[in-house]
Amino acid sequence: MMRWVDDSNAAQLIDLYQLRMAQAYFEERLDARATFDLFVRRLPPSRNFLLACGLDDALEFLERMSFDRGALDYLTKLGQFSADFLERLGRTRFTGDVYAVPEGTPVFAGEPILEVVAPLPEAQLVETFVMNQIHLQTVLASKAARIVEAAAGRPVVDFTLRRTHGVDAGLKSARALYIAGVASTSNVLAGRIYGLPVAGTMAHSYVQAHEDEDAAFRAFLRLYPEGVVLVDTYDTLTGVSRLVALARALGERFRVSAIRLDSGDLEDLSRAARRLLDEAGLRKVQIFASGGLDEHSIDALVRSGAPIDGFGVGTLLGVSADAPALDMVYKLVEYAGLARTKLSTDKHLLGGRKQVFRCSAGDVIARAEERHEGRRLLIPVMRDGRRLVDESLETIRERARREIGLLPNRCRSLEPMSPPYLVEVSAALNEEQRRLEELLAQRALSAR
Amino acid sequence: MMRWVDDSNAAQLIDLYQLRMAQAYFEERLDARATFDLFVRRLPPSRNFLLACGLDDALEFLERMSFDRGALDYLTKLGQFSADFLERLGRTRFTGDVYAVPEGTPVFAGEPILEVVAPLPEAQLVETFVMNQIHLQTVLASKAARIVEAAAGRPVVDFTLRRTHGVDAGLKSARALYIAGVASTSNVLAGRIYGLPVAGTMAHSYVQAHEDEDAAFRAFLRLYPEGVVLVDTYDTLTGVSRLVALARALGERFRVSAIRLDSGDLEDLSRAARRLLDEAGLRKVQIFASGGLDEHSIDALVRSGAPIDGFGVGTLLGVSADAPALDMVYKLVEYAGLARTKLSTDKHLLGGRKQVFRCSAGDVIARAEERHEGRRLLIPVMRDGRRLVDESLETIRERARREIGLLPNRCRSLEPMSPPYLVEVSAALNEEQRRLEELLAQRALSAR
Repeated sequence: MMRWVDDSNAAQLIDLYQLRMAQAYFEERLDARATFDLFVRRLPPSRNFLLACGLDDALEFLERMSFDRGALDYLTKLGQFSADFLERLGRTRFTGDVYAVPEGTPVFAGEPILEVVAPLPEAQLVETFVMNQIHLQTVLASKAARIVEAAAGRPVVDFTLRRTHGVDAGLKSARALYIAGVASTSNVLAGRIYGLPVAGTMAHSYVQAHEDEDAAFRAFLRLYPEGVVLVDTYDTLTGVSRLVALARALGERFRVSAIRLDSGDLEDLSRAARRLLDEAGLRKVQIFASGGLDEHSIDALVRSGAPIDGFGVGTLLGVSADAPALDMVYKLVEYAGLARTKLSTDKHLLGGRKQVFRCSAGDVIARAEERHEGRRLLIPVMRDGRRLVDESLETIRERARREIGLLPNRCRSLEPMSPPYLVEVSAALNEEQRRLEELLAQRALSAR
Repeated sequence: MMRWVDDSNAAQLIDLYQLRMAQAYFEERLDARATFDLFVRRLPPSRNFLLACGLDDALEFLERMSFDRGALDYLTKLGQFSADFLERLGRTRFTGDVYAVPEGTPVFAGEPILEVVAPLPEAQLVETFVMNQIHLQTVLASKAARIVEAAAGRPVVDFTLRRTHGVDAGLKSARALYIAGVASTSNVLAGRIYGLPVAGTMAHSYVQAHEDEDAAFRAFLRLYPEGVVLVDTYDTLTGVSRLVALARALGERFRVSAIRLDSGDLEDLSRAARRLLDEAGLRKVQIFASGGLDEHSIDALVRSGAPIDGFGVGTLLGVSADAPALDMVYKLVEYAGLARTKLSTDKHLLGGRKQVFRCSAGDVIARAEERHEGRRLLIPVMRDGRRLVDESLETIRERARREIGLLPNRCRSLEPMSPPYLVEVSAALNEEQRRLEELLAQRALSAR
């Protein structure tokens, strides 16, 4: 049985309860239009904002999702689904509308990143996949934005692939990071699929496989005269000295673009390496650093004035180590024209369709039909199951750069912002919510 | 351009430097046999052991990996690769041998989980993908083993899919969790592909879409009389009371198997709910808990004696929130018959091919050819590019259960084990390493 996911089986990446509920909706003829909001309930303590990302893959899925014969046969065997329902499921396509915050837009707690408006069973069936994709890319883009900020203009290279969580995250990581401002990626398939700049240096194994470091450097530079040379396999400054000796020997033919430091005290080593290089007249040879870096270590290096010209960032970015998950949810807020909410402890939910306005003072979450000062963040991106937008990565990346630039400085800081960025709920939405909760509380009391 | 990964493009999920090194090896005729060790340098502070997982997908990749025409065309366009090399790359298949610790075996820092023995370019080209897969599944299985331990015999259900990092992690998560002892999954595709038990209850949206909670419960139970009923949409104990009233009304036709609590103080609510159910003679109705659970909150609930019969675990398990990445590396330890090492600060590497022996007192990392007391953990799993093992999930799961059971209790504890599980390096391997480092240090000094 194939263990790859593609258009033929992506819809089956679904929680079983979605199918059980869909069957119940089918039996009960609960197929009026429903609105679900996708949003993050709380930001992780180490995030002042999130960068919305992943919409394109969500829309791609919505346009194509279907359950094939094999899926229906499997579901039949589970013995929980009627033939009538499965026949209907086989014909189900997503025919709804989607409103979303454009990719590359900073978003905050409580703000819908996406609103799905569709017949209830359809809107329910797409939850798992849509959440999976937008969650992943928003997690990664939000982390990357911090690392790009810390690098303060120095290029950041994506080294995440080997330790991202699986192959899909490996691919989407390169996309999300590029949107957040990362300069290039080591990931060849991502380079090919997304047209990203690809970059690569050498590994320790290359040096180790040679008789000695000098032989390795010579052989590498014969093939890649402008390559980046890894100097820390045995001893960093000895490695740099070897390279300097090689530069003397090669004369004009020496065109190495940079050395890479991958271990040890990067501040001290970069200063000492810079001195050795400069003394040898190799001012043009840059210093590139990698090895367990994140926004905090990069920020410390940059603030120290360490002569580092670029950073390769892998694991801690690729899994968003300090905040690998978001409290992201997909909640029913309207059904058959009526606002819906829930009252579960600590999980309150604003009912009804919404709009988010971005004003100079902060954001306002309002009812969909409200007028308000500021820019509307939610725009129509799909109508009747057909997408209305198809943006280039460059467009999205440029938006991210611009929109992050518009945030207050404290919001872009690596330190937690206190008080957080202002997100208010409009008076009209608050009033509507008050009425809704009152109604539900009365019903709950009457049942006790 | 397709954004799915499958056999046709998986090999391109590679760091560019692997291809650049492979071309250099090709030019330099460095194609003797190399051994690479895949291991974890340090365990995360919150892990006393790791559960090796993901080998099956690694072997599957090694049997099939190749670069297709589209890949070669793309690489041609990058302008860094010769036609000769790309022609050779197009013919490249993995023809090597692999030794590995069977999936479901506990492993510790420094112990090879996998040894790849192959012509240097082949062994180099497979690093990124093999690491990506084994890293992911070992991360997830190791976290899941803790959660299963904490649940102390109560079933744990996999609710991870919506917040795992992408679709591949979504699928592989279900596999890794099942190996670690999780009872069932909400993931339909994983159920289908791996033959796992699938489970599903209902979501808040189902309740919200109905006129009121009572109408929702009635409708749901008409279709799923033995279903699990979510009771916390508005107020948990009111929800339970409604269900009790419904049980009175339905009499013998009431066959609900469990209620689900998804918010609030699960200890208090489970006790109060149990009381309401028991007073109504509904002793057979179990209580199932979910909502932001991990091994610590489950352990606290179990120790408190809370009457909870099973747990649904999602986000914190699906991203292994406290340790989303491992310091896993793939390092050259032998080339052309000679042991290799590196001396980078804090990243020392034991050279040479190895065996790991598991003894009653702990583990010993030894030279491959050594004899030693204890069980050998590394076994041949692939020869000349063909796999030698193809284990069922049940076999692997049973091994995990048995092998975890053999660990010292302190190792299975949720608290950090101090001192850690004993892993020694054999005298012969230590002596070999001493000689190797001495040699390299002399060379380094002579170059200064």
